[in-house]
Amino acid sequence: MAGTNRTALAITGGPVIILVEPQLADNIGAAARAMLNFGLTEMRLVAPRDGWPNDRANAMASGAVEVLERAQVFETTADAVADLHWVAATTARGRDLVKPVLGPDTATREAASRMSSGQKCGVLFGRERTGLETEDIARAHAIVTYPVNPAFASLNLAQAVLLYGYEWFRAAVDWSPHQMPEPAPAAEFEGFIGHLERELDASGFLRPAEKKPGMMRNIRAMFQRADLTAQEVRTLRGVVRALAEFRPATKAHLIKNPGPIVDEEDGV
Amino acid sequence: MAGTNRTALAITGGPVIILVEPQLADNIGAAARAMLNFGLTEMRLVAPRDGWPNDRANAMASGAVEVLERAQVFETTADAVADLHWVAATTARGRDLVKPVLGPDTATREAASRMSSGQKCGVLFGRERTGLETEDIARAHAIVTYPVNPAFASLNLAQAVLLYGYEWFRAAVDWSPHQMPEPAPAAEFEGFIGHLERELDASGFLRPAEKKPGMMRNIRAMFQRADLTAQEVRTLRGVVRALAEFRPATKAHLIKNPGPIVDEEDGV
Repeated sequence: MAGTNRTALAITGGPVIILVEPQLADNIGAAARAMLNFGLTEMRLVAPRDGWPNDRANAMASGAVEVLERAQVFETTADAVADLHWVAATTARGRDLVKPVLGPDTATREAASRMSSGQKCGVLFGRERTGLETEDIARAHAIVTYPVNPAFASLNLAQAVLLYGYEWFRAAVDWSPHQMPEPAPAAEFEGFIGHLERELDASGFLRPAEKKPGMMRNIRAMFQRADLTAQEVRTLRGVVRALAEFRPATKAHLIKNPGPIVDEEDGV
Repeated sequence: MAGTNRTALAITGGPVIILVEPQLADNIGAAARAMLNFGLTEMRLVAPRDGWPNDRANAMASGAVEVLERAQVFETTADAVADLHWVAATTARGRDLVKPVLGPDTATREAASRMSSGQKCGVLFGRERTGLETEDIARAHAIVTYPVNPAFASLNLAQAVLLYGYEWFRAAVDWSPHQMPEPAPAAEFEGFIGHLERELDASGFLRPAEKKPGMMRNIRAMFQRADLTAQEVRTLRGVVRALAEFRPATKAHLIKNPGPIVDEEDGV
């Protein structure tokens, strides 16, 4: 999807993303891109199989090379987490260890809360095929498990990082989509309904008279449900005016069209 | 990540995922995989550039071929949405159209709610580089915008589908990670604390006597904070017993070690 704004303030920081013995440099690159999508910038690699730095990783990072350039390489998971105060391990297993098991949402909220009080947090992601080993998981304070289709649960490494980053962004950044535009004030809306009613009256549409209140209620309901903005109300008044003005010679029209066919039970 | 359970009940259904003029078959395959990870099974393609079916898509689907095999191809977006009651369009743009702008969380909750009352829902994803055109967006009832780092906002097509699927799964499936195991009942915990206190008393650790209550309170706090299970309490009692039994000839030990060095201010 498009929409990158390179002039916008970059969001940086967040938990350290630790890839334990990643096998494919492509996945490291894709993970870096996923990280930067959600403002995560600190990557650590434990014994990457194909060495480091790696051109294939750069190629897959789609511009997130700054994350790769800053990535640190460690020989063991113990070294990679040595300076961290709180570490989570992503795994679908490890249930035999007595640790809190969190979803990505609660895990990132926990990290955000700890980081706001000055703690340094990290999250471990395992090898592509086999995941984290029990020894790695044992070093973590909590386990992160993803909600996933049990019949097709295999998440790609970069996708697992992406979902973590997405939840981190939601936990850490005060984000909300733009809301629905402001609806028109009631007086403007009523101005339109009144205008429409006068024109419909003139056209002979609102007959017989005893049906008129119900018909207008039904018409009002349709437009009210649309949450019209002030601009849209003005547009609709223009539409009504245009239709009314170009109505072919009103009297002849009324004679030929003596009113709408109204369903006896439902009105309009 | 590992953990697929092919014997588990497959989750199926969910909103229709509509890829509008996808350029790369690889992305269609990766999107199919992301869909199936979260139980989404109905894919529609509007005028895929490289034709359909496509071997590269199958190669990237990592086993989610069933989604690709069922995918339907349409010539236009209008055809692809013709039978749907509610359609959302993923885009970072389109703010000039008067439509509700939702996050992926609220968009999937809305779809889940509508589908539970029998409506058929779908979501549009645009071309890789250029996204959805205004004409496509105009056909949607709502816009879906992703929370994303404004300085690096470009999401890969399959990743956009993945995040939608993730939120769909959370909205539609009653999922929660396994909770923390049940802590030991208080009586068992107290049994351990009492055991420890007796052994520490015997070892001469809890001296001088006036410091003992505070020292035991601090020791209790550490263990209480760990939310021990009943099994862990039994393990700790074994640890205490083992340490106490193998204590070298208690009397001699006490003479050589007349008690711990206790910080005057903090106790233990």
